[in-house]
Amino acid sequence: MLSFIEQIKLSHGSGRGLDNLLEEIVLPILFPGNTEPMEDAYLIEKQSLFPVKTPYKKLAFTTDSFVVQPLEFPGGNIGKLAACGTINDLAMMGASPKLMSVSLIIEEGLSASLLQKILKSLYETCQAAGIKIACGDTKVVDKGKADGLFINTAGIGVVPKGRNLSVSFAKPGDLVFLSGGIGLHGIAILAARKNLHFASQAISDCNPLNGLVDALFSITPEIHTLRDCTRGGCAAVLNEISKASDVSILINQEDIPVPEVVQGACSFLGMDPLSIACEGRFIAILPKKSPSETKSILESFRKLPHAHDAAIIGHVVEKQSFPVMIQTNIGGIRMVETPPGELLPRIC
Amino acid sequence: MLSFIEQIKLSHGSGRGLDNLLEEIVLPILFPGNTEPMEDAYLIEKQSLFPVKTPYKKLAFTTDSFVVQPLEFPGGNIGKLAACGTINDLAMMGASPKLMSVSLIIEEGLSASLLQKILKSLYETCQAAGIKIACGDTKVVDKGKADGLFINTAGIGVVPKGRNLSVSFAKPGDLVFLSGGIGLHGIAILAARKNLHFASQAISDCNPLNGLVDALFSITPEIHTLRDCTRGGCAAVLNEISKASDVSILINQEDIPVPEVVQGACSFLGMDPLSIACEGRFIAILPKKSPSETKSILESFRKLPHAHDAAIIGHVVEKQSFPVMIQTNIGGIRMVETPPGELLPRIC
Repeated sequence: MLSFIEQIKLSHGSGRGLDNLLEEIVLPILFPGNTEPMEDAYLIEKQSLFPVKTPYKKLAFTTDSFVVQPLEFPGGNIGKLAACGTINDLAMMGASPKLMSVSLIIEEGLSASLLQKILKSLYETCQAAGIKIACGDTKVVDKGKADGLFINTAGIGVVPKGRNLSVSFAKPGDLVFLSGGIGLHGIAILAARKNLHFASQAISDCNPLNGLVDALFSITPEIHTLRDCTRGGCAAVLNEISKASDVSILINQEDIPVPEVVQGACSFLGMDPLSIACEGRFIAILPKKSPSETKSILESFRKLPHAHDAAIIGHVVEKQSFPVMIQTNIGGIRMVETPPGELLPRIC
Repeated sequence: MLSFIEQIKLSHGSGRGLDNLLEEIVLPILFPGNTEPMEDAYLIEKQSLFPVKTPYKKLAFTTDSFVVQPLEFPGGNIGKLAACGTINDLAMMGASPKLMSVSLIIEEGLSASLLQKILKSLYETCQAAGIKIACGDTKVVDKGKADGLFINTAGIGVVPKGRNLSVSFAKPGDLVFLSGGIGLHGIAILAARKNLHFASQAISDCNPLNGLVDALFSITPEIHTLRDCTRGGCAAVLNEISKASDVSILINQEDIPVPEVVQGACSFLGMDPLSIACEGRFIAILPKKSPSETKSILESFRKLPHAHDAAIIGHVVEKQSFPVMIQTNIGGIRMVETPPGELLPRIC
């Protein structure tokens, strides 16, 4: 098999670099002939693997490895993040998280008390989200052959009847809902890693999202797409939805909730808040609503924890030359691209 | 929480060192209050998570991370190993492997062609074992922060009705069945890593075991325990069974199939073949049989691929002062201990 990539680079870890690595090397080998869009979790359809009776129509199965640096950051640590990552991937398919596996790769020399602290965060996050740790594995590698600790989690969830979500279900006219202010996780990691005092107020948004997703389904039962804004931020997610659904998306800069510390850091560093990763925010694509329905959804949702600045940030339109466009505060329209890979490596 | 371990050492990666790390730190936090023995996979009982109709009574769920060095070795590579590890953990609970997740942690600088070769091995092993790759994740870390490639796999399997296995089900009088000659994986890794010419004939036994397990169930439908002899080799597995089942185990040195190259390398290096890891051999604890039944089971099983030297190597006895004992070729009896951790790190 011919490949244009000769050596893996750090920039292959996120954004367009990751897209290239996946499309050139990983996906053709592991998923040959697949034409389905990439979802956050694999859905096990009723009857295909084993018959599942009501009230659950499908199971969901997902995995993520976590290599974040530093291992501890304001608002969390790699343990909390590893739990949230898998819980949230399940939640984005509408699944209630049920079982998690936890696999540790420990670098020789890691302090036992730090390991304990991290595992406690992981456990407590699972408890809070109602997911059971079912199985695990522990490996130790020589000093200098890892980076303190890597954690893999995989998860199984059950999808309640009536929930039918996909990154490919966005339709022209749909609303783009954002669950809260963006970029806090990425800026918190950046500040901790580079010791940036001007961004030291940033606290990661890292949190389990299954409760908020359940709440949103109660408020508005029809949801077309859910996706959490992790690597590549909202910019990557909106581009993924646009591509998989064969539509364009138009968002309004003035409607996007950007916390002050994120705005400040991004202005100073020349970064776009839309490209900064969150670990506790999601985009929902909702079918078209009247203004009063929209207002009522937002009012109900904003009462929930971590959701006070949820917003409708735009809408889906027929496919145009640009997949994702933003109406800027100064009146122009520009394209929103999936960020390249090297912006902020190893944020999760 | 008080811990006697202050820093993780390489010796915490296997054998008694791993037992200590798990018992002091990992298990009390992730599985508080658990008194069940550790199995190779978590069983999802019918009705507890969702109702599952016949013909499957239970699902199984497991995970493993792979950090083997070198990435390629005689008889396989980390991709084949990562597929076999999860397939075999499911098979050891009697489950037919159905779905696998694959998560990559790639060190910057890994050659793309090596990555492709490894992923192809992983995929082909899954195809051969009938397990579908359902989902995945890819992370890249900076040069010097990993060791080429780490792979995590997690798996879901379904347990056919009538199969009810546990490491705690061994009973006095039961037979100890071994599926084939031991130690080839560990010696192949050692030879490749240390460039040991006298052991260069060793080809890893790394292989999916679900076919052999299905065959053994056809030959003899009642099996109490299955466990593959990975980290710590047969010595660790026999000690785990003895502990969980509250019995002792007596094996006969003359009945244990040890390939010539393994025997030679172990004699030269002063190692015990029982402590050397396999990645394609399992121990089965079978209920007591007549000599003619035993003979017929062995004759049928030995016709299968990779199984020509399968053997009954001993039997289970009432609990005695030593958990596992071996009748040696020179007529004595000695204790067989779980090996300490540092013997051969990173064999899987």
